[in-house]
Amino acid sequence: MIDFWFSIGSTYSYLSVMRLAQVEAQAGVGFHWRPFNVRAIMIEMDNIPFARKPAKAAYMWRDIERRAAMYKMAPRLPAPYPLAELERANRVAVIAANEGWCAAYTRETYRRWFELGEPAGSEPNLSASIAKAGAEPGRVLRDADSDSAKIGLAAATEEAKALGIFGSPSFVVDSELFWGDDRLEDAIRWLKQMESGPPD
Amino acid sequence: MIDFWFSIGSTYSYLSVMRLAQVEAQAGVGFHWRPFNVRAIMIEMDNIPFARKPAKAAYMWRDIERRAAMYKMAPRLPAPYPLAELERANRVAVIAANEGWCAAYTRETYRRWFELGEPAGSEPNLSASIAKAGAEPGRVLRDADSDSAKIGLAAATEEAKALGIFGSPSFVVDSELFWGDDRLEDAIRWLKQMESGPPD
Repeated sequence: MIDFWFSIGSTYSYLSVMRLAQVEAQAGVGFHWRPFNVRAIMIEMDNIPFARKPAKAAYMWRDIERRAAMYKMAPRLPAPYPLAELERANRVAVIAANEGWCAAYTRETYRRWFELGEPAGSEPNLSASIAKAGAEPGRVLRDADSDSAKIGLAAATEEAKALGIFGSPSFVVDSELFWGDDRLEDAIRWLKQMESGPPD
Repeated sequence: MIDFWFSIGSTYSYLSVMRLAQVEAQAGVGFHWRPFNVRAIMIEMDNIPFARKPAKAAYMWRDIERRAAMYKMAPRLPAPYPLAELERANRVAVIAANEGWCAAYTRETYRRWFELGEPAGSEPNLSASIAKAGAEPGRVLRDADSDSAKIGLAAATEEAKALGIFGSPSFVVDSELFWGDDRLEDAIRWLKQMESGPPD
């Protein structure tokens, strides 16, 4: 089992979110979906987001476009960025993780964000993605605005930070941290090596 | 031909510098070594180096260690960082590129930096690496302190910036930019696809 730490709002996470089901089936590896608030960690660490870095942002979109093509995905780029409602998107994800529909919700919200241009965390994306995952939007949205949902997201973020996580997506195998969609295959290799014998 | 843009002083560039000769032989691809001053670009873009980011720095060293093992390299990590004499190291590289001994010098200076713990750009690494590449250290070091060497490095850096480069290593194929040692295989695929037919 690999812990998949992600924040809805992260651009590169689109690639992982959309290919994880296929990777799971092909590699025979399970993923535990762990939403957290990467923005809170980035602000604390003074990691400046792409939004304030034109050269890096231009590169990022082109890089995502090339990688998406490699995976046979067809996003409309650039997607709306940054998200106005990043926290709400991830509070819903924490509720979804507790209730067992996190992967379905996250995939749908990213699909709508990157393929239809509807920002995640805002309407109409938010309710549609909750409904698509089989939950009731009205109830979930009320829960998502509760103190307990805010505490849930903050606690997950503290847990991520304690693991050394500073970006999304991150993959954790045992206590080994892999950052970025482009390290997913390394994480899988690490897990298989762990399972097949003693570490070298 | 792929343009290999690098700055001595960049940690991840160690991986590319040390494996490029083998990649060149195996993939049948030529590389044009283009030293520039990544620090000048990072300062201008307000890209904060790893030295001021403890969580990212810890991750970086571990990531380099894992990737180096994958490539059968054996660095002693962490290497001394950051370099005090980054500019001098790269002024020598610009001279070396003009005179045809850049790859040999850069490989040796990285080997000494990452495998013996001798900072690049400073003695004894600097003279030993120049000599190993077949040049005369006294003459090269005098040239490296000249205005013309300073202008040469600044001009290369402006050229990098105009290409959209903001980090080292970067690979440029035609006008397509790939950033990071982990994008080297993508750059090679891009080149081969370009050579094999019209782009899609």
